[in-house]
Amino acid sequence: MRYTTAGESHGPEEIAVIEGIPAGLHITQADIDEQLARRQQGYGRGERQKIETDTVTFLTGVRHQLTLGSPITLNVHNDDHNNWSKIMAPDDPATSENTLRKVLRPRPGHADLVGGMKYRHHDDLRNVLERSSARETTMRVAVGAVAKKLLSEIGVDVHGFVVNVGPAKSDLNDLTKYHDLNELRLVTESFPTRALSAEADAAIREVIDQTKRNANTVGGQVQVMATGMPVGLGSYVSADTKLDAKIARAIVGINAFKGVQFGGGFDNAEKFGDQVMDEIFWDEKRGFYRGSDNLGGFEGGMTTGEAIVVRGVVKPIPTLYRPMQSVDIDTHQDHKASIERSDTTAVTAAAVIAEAMVAIELAKAVLDKFDADNIDRMKEQVERYRDEIRSF
Amino acid sequence: MRYTTAGESHGPEEIAVIEGIPAGLHITQADIDEQLARRQQGYGRGERQKIETDTVTFLTGVRHQLTLGSPITLNVHNDDHNNWSKIMAPDDPATSENTLRKVLRPRPGHADLVGGMKYRHHDDLRNVLERSSARETTMRVAVGAVAKKLLSEIGVDVHGFVVNVGPAKSDLNDLTKYHDLNELRLVTESFPTRALSAEADAAIREVIDQTKRNANTVGGQVQVMATGMPVGLGSYVSADTKLDAKIARAIVGINAFKGVQFGGGFDNAEKFGDQVMDEIFWDEKRGFYRGSDNLGGFEGGMTTGEAIVVRGVVKPIPTLYRPMQSVDIDTHQDHKASIERSDTTAVTAAAVIAEAMVAIELAKAVLDKFDADNIDRMKEQVERYRDEIRSF
Amino acid sequence: MRYTTAGESHGPEEIAVIEGIPAGLHITQADIDEQLARRQQGYGRGERQKIETDTVTFLTGVRHQLTLGSPITLNVHNDDHNNWSKIMAPDDPATSENTLRKVLRPRPGHADLVGGMKYRHHDDLRNVLERSSARETTMRVAVGAVAKKLLSEIGVDVHGFVVNVGPAKSDLNDLTKYHDLNELRLVTESFPTRALSAEADAAIREVIDQTKRNANTVGGQVQVMATGMPVGLGSYVSADTKLDAKIARAIVGINAFKGVQFGGGFDNAEKFGDQVMDEIFWDEKRGFYRGSDNLGGFEGGMTTGEAIVVRGVVKPIPTLYRPMQSVDIDTHQDHKASIERSDTTAVTAAAVIAEAMVAIELAKAVLDKFDADNIDRMKEQVERYRDEIRSF
Amino acid sequence: MRYTTAGESHGPEEIAVIEGIPAGLHITQADIDEQLARRQQGYGRGERQKIETDTVTFLTGVRHQLTLGSPITLNVHNDDHNNWSKIMAPDDPATSENTLRKVLRPRPGHADLVGGMKYRHHDDLRNVLERSSARETTMRVAVGAVAKKLLSEIGVDVHGFVVNVGPAKSDLNDLTKYHDLNELRLVTESFPTRALSAEADAAIREVIDQTKRNANTVGGQVQVMATGMPVGLGSYVSADTKLDAKIARAIVGINAFKGVQFGGGFDNAEKFGDQVMDEIFWDEKRGFYRGSDNLGGFEGGMTTGEAIVVRGVVKPIPTLYRPMQSVDIDTHQDHKASIERSDTTAVTAAAVIAEAMVAIELAKAVLDKFDADNIDRMKEQVERYRDEIRSF
Repeated sequence: MRYTTAGESHGPEEIAVIEGIPAGLHITQADIDEQLARRQQGYGRGERQKIETDTVTFLTGVRHQLTLGSPITLNVHNDDHNNWSKIMAPDDPATSENTLRKVLRPRPGHADLVGGMKYRHHDDLRNVLERSSARETTMRVAVGAVAKKLLSEIGVDVHGFVVNVGPAKSDLNDLTKYHDLNELRLVTESFPTRALSAEADAAIREVIDQTKRNANTVGGQVQVMATGMPVGLGSYVSADTKLDAKIARAIVGINAFKGVQFGGGFDNAEKFGDQVMDEIFWDEKRGFYRGSDNLGGFEGGMTTGEAIVVRGVVKPIPTLYRPMQSVDIDTHQDHKASIERSDTTAVTAAAVIAEAMVAIELAKAVLDKFDADNIDRMKEQVERYRDEIRSF
Repeated sequence: MRYTTAGESHGPEEIAVIEGIPAGLHITQADIDEQLARRQQGYGRGERQKIETDTVTFLTGVRHQLTLGSPITLNVHNDDHNNWSKIMAPDDPATSENTLRKVLRPRPGHADLVGGMKYRHHDDLRNVLERSSARETTMRVAVGAVAKKLLSEIGVDVHGFVVNVGPAKSDLNDLTKYHDLNELRLVTESFPTRALSAEADAAIREVIDQTKRNANTVGGQVQVMATGMPVGLGSYVSADTKLDAKIARAIVGINAFKGVQFGGGFDNAEKFGDQVMDEIFWDEKRGFYRGSDNLGGFEGGMTTGEAIVVRGVVKPIPTLYRPMQSVDIDTHQDHKASIERSDTTAVTAAAVIAEAMVAIELAKAVLDKFDADNIDRMKEQVERYRDEIRSF
Repeated sequence: MRYTTAGESHGPEEIAVIEGIPAGLHITQADIDEQLARRQQGYGRGERQKIETDTVTFLTGVRHQLTLGSPITLNVHNDDHNNWSKIMAPDDPATSENTLRKVLRPRPGHADLVGGMKYRHHDDLRNVLERSSARETTMRVAVGAVAKKLLSEIGVDVHGFVVNVGPAKSDLNDLTKYHDLNELRLVTESFPTRALSAEADAAIREVIDQTKRNANTVGGQVQVMATGMPVGLGSYVSADTKLDAKIARAIVGINAFKGVQFGGGFDNAEKFGDQVMDEIFWDEKRGFYRGSDNLGGFEGGMTTGEAIVVRGVVKPIPTLYRPMQSVDIDTHQDHKASIERSDTTAVTAAAVIAEAMVAIELAKAVLDKFDADNIDRMKEQVERYRDEIRSF
Repeated sequence: MRYTTAGESHGPEEIAVIEGIPAGLHITQADIDEQLARRQQGYGRGERQKIETDTVTFLTGVRHQLTLGSPITLNVHNDDHNNWSKIMAPDDPATSENTLRKVLRPRPGHADLVGGMKYRHHDDLRNVLERSSARETTMRVAVGAVAKKLLSEIGVDVHGFVVNVGPAKSDLNDLTKYHDLNELRLVTESFPTRALSAEADAAIREVIDQTKRNANTVGGQVQVMATGMPVGLGSYVSADTKLDAKIARAIVGINAFKGVQFGGGFDNAEKFGDQVMDEIFWDEKRGFYRGSDNLGGFEGGMTTGEAIVVRGVVKPIPTLYRPMQSVDIDTHQDHKASIERSDTTAVTAAAVIAEAMVAIELAKAVLDKFDADNIDRMKEQVERYRDEIRSF
């Protein structure tokens, strides 16, 4: 399985093409729209989410709600393109009229300046920021929805929620209250902040409101958990076969993410060996299992069968309504940075995006090991493999 | 540029093959041995480092100390193999004699159990742990030495050091004392712990000594910095073109690493936008530059030209001399885990390994953008590109 | 540069996404439509080409007729989908009504049977043949048009024509009449068969007409030539870095192609060394050059600077109006194969498709070696490299 | 599965590293040496084959004759290096003494000139020809031997032989005499030319002898056949998933190969549809099968279950003892090309090399679809899949 996304923020369409999904997977546009809606609903999102409701259309690869085995194209139309049809016109030559709204004052923390240098977009940094935009994550969530559907066929569940926004934090001890990710999902999705409790939700909303009043933005952390993965996906044999490393790349590759950790993560820096390892037990019914999950579901870059626990950190959004110091690329004069419409925080949406990225990497790992041509054959192989592992 | 490592911990040889290094790069075995020695010298390493001194041999791809453009093979002989020549014999059939020293009690936190399940190494988990071993990092350091040599040709310097081991910490404010990485290198390499100061060094040694007395192991953090990278390597255009994401994968792909962050990293979770972004300035001589480096040298997954700052966290070594609870895979009876010869902490060596991995990713990024056939042509292109960026 | 195509023959849309095209390349929808029209115009094509005229729309990656550096999505609408909107509906569940027109009698020579087995499309082999269809080549020609545009910026021209259809042949000695590929293009594109001369054109039309009267199909050969490529693209250093080998894959990867050769190709089997090699000369103005081009522009898997000459063979179309022996996959009874609307020969279109595939591989090779971020920077680098090679 | 080869013709070692071979495959150095010997034994090979007998050593990845699942390193020592130890010294600086035997007169048809330009090896074209040498194919044969061993575990056999050398030809109708590839192997390997019959063998030897007397070289064709492949490997869904296309790349990627074809290949150019397709039949015991194998075992880029038939053409060796016209790269004066020790024809060895390359691609395809972690699990999956296909 591999995928590509394409699309500019105010261009006509957002596109994703996914190759290597087995034939016979049942999937509907509604399955994907449900995830797209989650991405749009986070507290602290700005106006754009009210302008348009993202819905997907299958352009290729699906027939009668079943995948064909051929490449799948997902399409989300940018409703807002109507307001930008001249400025973002693909096939009209540039004119004095359609090159208004140029961006010449790069925003610190965004790709504007470096992207302009790299691609020689000296005329208009819009050519950078139209792609280097949170809008692109729409299609990652769409691809992630397909991955989640595939994983659900073999009993793998994936869920993301918000750990903290600025100083307001969820209490992670609350996680022990829930028997499975579905119970957890019902709780965190009931809050507009995706926090773990009503108290945390209220505190986070208060931080966001206050930040907005300050014309500022704020960072936070999200956590993604996955249960039910077969044991032994990924491998220790080479640097680039480790599955946790692939997930690290997927998370840091999301706009604004500045770090990632697994299980206890950075807390390991102050721990001793006997506090960290997950001891090994065995019983007739379950086979081998662990007494804890300090390592976040990975040993040697491979899934252990315990819950996968991934944490990511999201920096504050760099587009400030009280802009920072910049320089006009035309005149080389100091100026405040450009203002593009933006949100107060991306953390609540980031939980959904990180969940999608983890789902994509897990689905890839499953399809690397098991038959990727037909979903039922894949399921049969997974089932046999699980029996084998249980009787090790 | 791509590379592969191969080799078992007590097998005859460790091997790395590197493809795509330009012709004409001056490199000697001594250049690599110097880095291998650094890896072996960290405080807290165990007995093996005293048994053998790693030295590399060029098997292919280098002639008269110049790369040929063809694949380069690096070879480090395992001196310790003499003691294991029957047990690890590649081409002898298994006999009752050469299958002694079986490992049947998997160590929690190591790849033993899961690796055994995945590859069906039910007879002997040694088949897993011989590869899933810190020994493998020898060759990553060797490959990293080639990458560092290449980077040095265009004025890129890369250096790793130790932030903390358990509760004993370097004071990162000390970093401001040094004008460049070479000054920093002279300091941190003067300490057996690779700490930032004599005080930190003493404190860290004390922690390691105490941990060893406790028959325990301990985790820590390392930091890698790189200066002089051309602006605009990596790209925002796709999830998998971001250079910071590739580095994240490279770091988490090192044995025992459980997390990675860039610049302020996880501190961003409690920060507001105006505290985080690196404001933009311009002057005639330097062109565009920043007033700070909070983002660790990356915007939009691209190098900004500021110093790259990567932090990784290393979990305690899972092989304890006071072993944890495990289960014999033959009898399914509870047992303490196996004991393999091991160190008290891997953090001091991890700084060198992480440095190598960052160097490899940076070299790849340079060779992706610039001519990868001849080193002088590459340098000419880099020079012209830097002029172009400076006059943006 | 990498690309993906997607789309079913009677589905709503054909899609291609291209990543890695430099920013700043001027390209219009008309540039692509011109190539799509060429694909549709060959003699011997059937009814479908009269139903619809393919035109492309840029969905992403292009603004004001300039590439942005971000992924480019090309879209060709299947006009014929109107007649198939229920049968090929992506998001409607299967019903008794929309599952008519099932294909259960696989056509020998097509992917129907094997594809059905592989993907478990036992219910309806249409799920195979909708993708394994000449329709898919539309998007390869579209991607090839972008590649050709990029190549034209550095003076590389690529052209494909028809060598023979069945027993009717072009005389390849006629090639010496033309000074460059553009002259050749004017001639071959003036004939509906893409032959090299009026005589050959007439003979080929006669063969096609006769074949059609026989309710049969017929094979042939096409040749693609490319001029102006920089010297030294591709490499001898590894099996998978040879550029001629990549082109071989691209050609055999086209539907119905059963072989490929370079320069003298299979004639080499009966030749002696002194008849084959291209002797080396030098003069002040041109630098090194050859006295002949027997090797088709490649030595050691690298471009020599001489014209690239690639020949491909196209098997007869497997869909016969007088169908061959097959078996119903439901009943296991012998039956004649299904009949889908089809052409008499694909050779005339295949010249355009093969040309596109060669252009894609050449563009990839150029972008591998030179800057792939901005078209002007790429051109500057190519120019300097050519100067260097000339003064070798 | 992926692999890399490394090594210069007169350097100390030839190396190959193979990743992704399942654990538990039984393999010995003798298995590989047997194939290396075949490569050295062809009629028409020159002196080098008498100087040294290639034997492999496992450096990594194999223990007690079983693969570990970790990367496998194969090593063949260049005995001839003793005579070149100064001139090819990796870690000595260049001196007046060790830079003798420079090559400055590029041989037409070899990579010398273009390679020199690309990598700026202006000082000594030996830096090119040491890698761009038939010596490199040693390691492909070694890797192919591992692939063949893996394939033999699931009943896939692969064999290559010589079709013709110059005007002397095997009669391919003789193929029908043999029930399986092993019978065929016994015949063709009994002849020093790998021809199909004693008559053809004698004729080919006569051509080679005569060519040698003429100080010339000669080309030819080889054919590789494979039986027993599971149905449905490779795919029609994308240009780069077709297995025949991958094989085409593998064949043309061998030194001196100028073309490749499948089944009837270029004969298709003059055929009509009803002469070409392989009609479909079914019986209770075998399931679906074909009445012929005109398409060489592929439909839609997928294996049909019929024998795979691949033909490649080998150009005459470009190193002539009566050298062709060239130019000294130092003086730009006309000169005859350099003479390096060489053979009269590579065709007899090429059959073994092409066989290896086909085996590698088939093994990759098997490991892409089935479990690649453990050989027994792979075999179990193949077995179940074959049952499924048989009952389609």
